[in-house]
Amino acid sequence: MAEAINFKKLFEPRSIAVVGVSSDITKGASGFLNSLITLGFPGAIYPVNNKLNEVLGLETYPSVSSIPHPVDYAIIGVPAAAVPGVVDDCACKGVPFVQIFTSGFEELGTAEGTALQQRIKEKGKGRTRIIGPNCMGIYHPNARIGFEPEQSVRPGDVGFISQSGGLAMNFVDRSVSEKIFVSKLISIGNACDLCLTDFLNYFRQDPETQVIGTYLEGLQQNEHRKFFFLARAVTQTKPLVMWKPGYTEAGARAARSHTGSMVGTYRIWRSMSTQTGIIMVQSMEELVDVISIYVRSPLPKGLQVSIVAYGGGANVTATDACTSQGLKLPILEPEIQQKMLAFIPEAGTFRGNPVDVTGWVTSPRIAGGVSLLAACDPQIHALIFILDIDFIFKQCNRLNLDQERLLGGHSKSLLRIKEETGKPVVCVLQKTGDVLALEDARLKAKNRFLDIGIPCFPDIARAAKALVHLNAYRLYRDHSRFKPLETAGSRIA
Amino acid sequence: MAEAINFKKLFEPRSIAVVGVSSDITKGASGFLNSLITLGFPGAIYPVNNKLNEVLGLETYPSVSSIPHPVDYAIIGVPAAAVPGVVDDCACKGVPFVQIFTSGFEELGTAEGTALQQRIKEKGKGRTRIIGPNCMGIYHPNARIGFEPEQSVRPGDVGFISQSGGLAMNFVDRSVSEKIFVSKLISIGNACDLCLTDFLNYFRQDPETQVIGTYLEGLQQNEHRKFFFLARAVTQTKPLVMWKPGYTEAGARAARSHTGSMVGTYRIWRSMSTQTGIIMVQSMEELVDVISIYVRSPLPKGLQVSIVAYGGGANVTATDACTSQGLKLPILEPEIQQKMLAFIPEAGTFRGNPVDVTGWVTSPRIAGGVSLLAACDPQIHALIFILDIDFIFKQCNRLNLDQERLLGGHSKSLLRIKEETGKPVVCVLQKTGDVLALEDARLKAKNRFLDIGIPCFPDIARAAKALVHLNAYRLYRDHSRFKPLETAGSRIA
Repeated sequence: MAEAINFKKLFEPRSIAVVGVSSDITKGASGFLNSLITLGFPGAIYPVNNKLNEVLGLETYPSVSSIPHPVDYAIIGVPAAAVPGVVDDCACKGVPFVQIFTSGFEELGTAEGTALQQRIKEKGKGRTRIIGPNCMGIYHPNARIGFEPEQSVRPGDVGFISQSGGLAMNFVDRSVSEKIFVSKLISIGNACDLCLTDFLNYFRQDPETQVIGTYLEGLQQNEHRKFFFLARAVTQTKPLVMWKPGYTEAGARAARSHTGSMVGTYRIWRSMSTQTGIIMVQSMEELVDVISIYVRSPLPKGLQVSIVAYGGGANVTATDACTSQGLKLPILEPEIQQKMLAFIPEAGTFRGNPVDVTGWVTSPRIAGGVSLLAACDPQIHALIFILDIDFIFKQCNRLNLDQERLLGGHSKSLLRIKEETGKPVVCVLQKTGDVLALEDARLKAKNRFLDIGIPCFPDIARAAKALVHLNAYRLYRDHSRFKPLETAGSRIA
Repeated sequence: MAEAINFKKLFEPRSIAVVGVSSDITKGASGFLNSLITLGFPGAIYPVNNKLNEVLGLETYPSVSSIPHPVDYAIIGVPAAAVPGVVDDCACKGVPFVQIFTSGFEELGTAEGTALQQRIKEKGKGRTRIIGPNCMGIYHPNARIGFEPEQSVRPGDVGFISQSGGLAMNFVDRSVSEKIFVSKLISIGNACDLCLTDFLNYFRQDPETQVIGTYLEGLQQNEHRKFFFLARAVTQTKPLVMWKPGYTEAGARAARSHTGSMVGTYRIWRSMSTQTGIIMVQSMEELVDVISIYVRSPLPKGLQVSIVAYGGGANVTATDACTSQGLKLPILEPEIQQKMLAFIPEAGTFRGNPVDVTGWVTSPRIAGGVSLLAACDPQIHALIFILDIDFIFKQCNRLNLDQERLLGGHSKSLLRIKEETGKPVVCVLQKTGDVLALEDARLKAKNRFLDIGIPCFPDIARAAKALVHLNAYRLYRDHSRFKPLETAGSRIA
């Protein structure tokens, strides 16, 4: 495996030039400038514009080469036709890394666009490394570098590589609300020079990064073989979760016009994932769910789960949702079911699996006691505990119960089960009414569970899917016989 | 087709007896009593208990037969062993309809449970009609009858029949937040006497009911043939949307222990749906989504849609989500694409389909103008407009835009497109950050769109699925060649 490129000056630059700033801080290069200032980037920032003297209180320079200090990283937001000249100027100045925000290159699908991209590539070759064009560059909270002024500066251990700038922004927002935080993120856009494998190889060795996510429309032409062996090496120690769009014909067409990517046959990608241990997902939610469960759970030893919930119909439909994702619900051992009768009565409840604790779900002691018994069954590899937010909310109002205390009790008992059994324990916080008061209750509960290390999902199907992915990854690591989750995509393309 | 049973005394009773009340209004029969009082039921209410003199300010009676007035409907919540006696008492009194809330009958899977259910059936036979046991009875907002004190009394045009009491409650909550309202709802539980087909036949002729939903674990043994012909008759004029669980082996097992239902092979059910025009769904969300789009949209003439949205990656993944549900995205006609250039520039945007209006999504005039052009393309049968709540929220804050005005502008332009083209126009309000401020913004926008008749969905897959169902129903009605949506369930069982 090749040594990773030394990205120190990219991720920890002493100085950044922002080329093409204007007085409108909401647009283009000025948006980057505003973000760096707002996030508190501690190094030097040099705005470049040949008409203005000052932007956002900073002295501007007419060109990068006219900056009388070293520049480690340049962000370029000038119109497409002017980009080759700026890259050349950066190269002359000795800037090691440039990022091109500007679009209007190969993604246009025109001869002109392709030629222009080729020109910037040639301008940089051997002199300065290029990220993009048509991208948002890097987000590195630890260095206070980002591309939106609202981005979090809390560092984490999740690396992310995205071919879409918009989805890179979405990932940052989403990860913050799931309380999983980013080590470093790179939006690579058209990837004319630095590409997925360069950053993947870096993440493989980066001690800050424990799990890697990626949104990838397509690899570069010469990158496939390298990617295959690199992915195999990465997944030995860190999960690689990949959202690969374009699994339908129309989606593939849309990808071509977005980043000029040839997406390849989805079937080939699935086959590659089997051989490399990559976890393939099909949405932002699924991607974040897998990362959230991985960072908070031991790897499950199999697919057999127990569900503990309230309500007959809810349990029937939860069982369908679980098993259609590939999980199994063995009937709990008779002595386990017998022991549950110390907590719940025989009539009205059900103890076989799924376990219906009925209205006792409002008692953390009872629901927790039953759940621990279910999780202790040697057949069971993971526990799924379902809380119906609508019911909890109504019952707390009707019976004047302290909702915070109730949820605190549940979170503690689930943590205890996780610790005592060493098995994954997940919580489904589902709600039916689509109203703000319930969402407020759900979010408060969710944050409480996430804070103590219990992964949370808004519905059973997503919890089940995340567990299936986690088990597939465990299987690959244990035996190198990875069984990817069968999803809709495999039936298409 | 048989005449429907006359349910006038059930749905518009002059008086209701509630049997088995206690002083704890949160439990059992007293919960029903509390709900009737809270919802403002205008008729007489007679609590029955042979120990108390008064409950919730109402005089109690020792038995139903001791009530010195006619009783149209009795709700029974006494322990299981006492139920046959109460049914007998009601029959002697001449009560035409009783509902048994109590559980502990056939759903136990024991000989005793089955025998007890048989006994209540015999007690009622030819004398009083029974709903249940193991059910919540009826919800009829127009008559102010319900089983939860928080239920809405706003009448609507959606009929619902549920074998699960919990999911019946969920349906009421959900329908209110989707602004589709219930005409009448019946929770039938074990359905030992009155069963699905009785109420379906009633809904077929009920002028209050325009669309029918059902959660059904299994039919009664002698009910299948009747159901088949009835469903065929119903779907000629009213859509029948059926959530049929137990499509996995474990789910079927769970259903047996819930309502004692034999769920039947899911494949047979799917085949039945093809021949009867039933819309089969697999979750509460899907069920409500289909009803919401039906009541707000013309039937689409086909599966070809145009997507209008912001962001390249978002469009690629939206296209995947749409087409994997069965929709098609034809490339828009060149002259349509050309006309769009009056609104958006050529560089950076994409007009082929999906249409990427980029940051212009914050301009209702521009995004609306482009959307109208897309919807007018004769190839297109429906328009899907995607609003990224995170982006709208951020841009409004950054640029000091009036979010309410922006959303008002979008809702008006979508309504105009729907009216001018006569095609379904749906809005996807998607958000990435799982935080309360965004949910607040989403719900405000959603309510605004729903109020003027634009169906809203939180993600593209759900919007696509609803459109596919609606088109399948249109096909069945037009040609009686119904093509049900292919979902995960059909690959199982």
